[in-house]
Amino acid sequence: MPWVKSFDIDDVTNRAMNLFWSKGFESTSITNLTKHTGINKGSLYNAFGSKKALFKLVLLKYDLEQRQATLLKIKEISDPLQAIDHLFALIIEQSLADKEKKGCFLVNTAIEVPHHDDDIREIVKLGMDDFINFFVDQLNQAKIAGILFADTDVQACAKTLLTLVVGMRVLARGTFEKEDLLSIQSQALFLIHK
Amino acid sequence: MPWVKSFDIDDVTNRAMNLFWSKGFESTSITNLTKHTGINKGSLYNAFGSKKALFKLVLLKYDLEQRQATLLKIKEISDPLQAIDHLFALIIEQSLADKEKKGCFLVNTAIEVPHHDDDIREIVKLGMDDFINFFVDQLNQAKIAGILFADTDVQACAKTLLTLVVGMRVLARGTFEKEDLLSIQSQALFLIHK
Repeated sequence: MPWVKSFDIDDVTNRAMNLFWSKGFESTSITNLTKHTGINKGSLYNAFGSKKALFKLVLLKYDLEQRQATLLKIKEISDPLQAIDHLFALIIEQSLADKEKKGCFLVNTAIEVPHHDDDIREIVKLGMDDFINFFVDQLNQAKIAGILFADTDVQACAKTLLTLVVGMRVLARGTFEKEDLLSIQSQALFLIHK
Repeated sequence: MPWVKSFDIDDVTNRAMNLFWSKGFESTSITNLTKHTGINKGSLYNAFGSKKALFKLVLLKYDLEQRQATLLKIKEISDPLQAIDHLFALIIEQSLADKEKKGCFLVNTAIEVPHHDDDIREIVKLGMDDFINFFVDQLNQAKIAGILFADTDVQACAKTLLTLVVGMRVLARGTFEKEDLLSIQSQALFLIHK
């Protein structure tokens, strides 16, 4: 008889993702993980190898299911500057709907772990770079359409938009209210509109 | 004979500040603190009350000695937009000099603790508000001097500049290099220059 997994892998990785997302890497103990996922230590190590391996797996899962999924939705919008504006709106919506104020798992990780671990820094960096590339694409399209200043430094502008997104994600965790976040969205337009 | 403190309070709070700044609140154990400060658990509790009370004390110390000290230096610059630009330059300089990539203790705390604790959220919020007020003052001066668009929304612009500072502090911890940070500084000028 083959070895049969005694747990639902999707359910367990979802629970682990939410726990790491809320508490961070360092503060999440193996005991927290076994309690929260409902599976024992042995099964956890058998299935995932180590706490760090599990963290990496669920960070990639977040990146795919949350960050990439959000960008995919936005890419359906044909007007490139409206797409950027709508991304800000969506991030504000997500921040306000987040009652636990967990913020963005990638941004939280960018604060906590990267300076300690190369593999995790790489996951964060790829996610951030993909975000920058999204902005670069939209800004280039806007330039071609003649709705962006011809001399806008597209790379610098894209990185600045990412920096605003990251800053909003931090400040939405207890410092900024809805109207503050909306004012950032409106100011971001000054960077990209003629 | 009165009770005599057997340690140098400045030295101990400095060491505790650096530890909390580097590791965050949750990951710093009492054992870490006794090891790093060189004083025992009993003395630590006698002198500071609790881990949380010590954290609050050293966060306020950081706010005074680092954040407020930086703003005081900047306020000596008479041109208001140059002052803002110089603040960005100073933050980049501090980020690049920070070999441990500890970032900004207030920003790190804004990610980690505020949603769990009202007192700590208040310290972070006061620091951020003071930063916003600095930008508001400079922008109002620039308006009077006629070097800022007359219709600039000063509050919204000030909050956006803070959001850029916070985002830079996060991204400087392993994602952005020097040239990325410099491009944010140059783009910030588009928000404030005529």
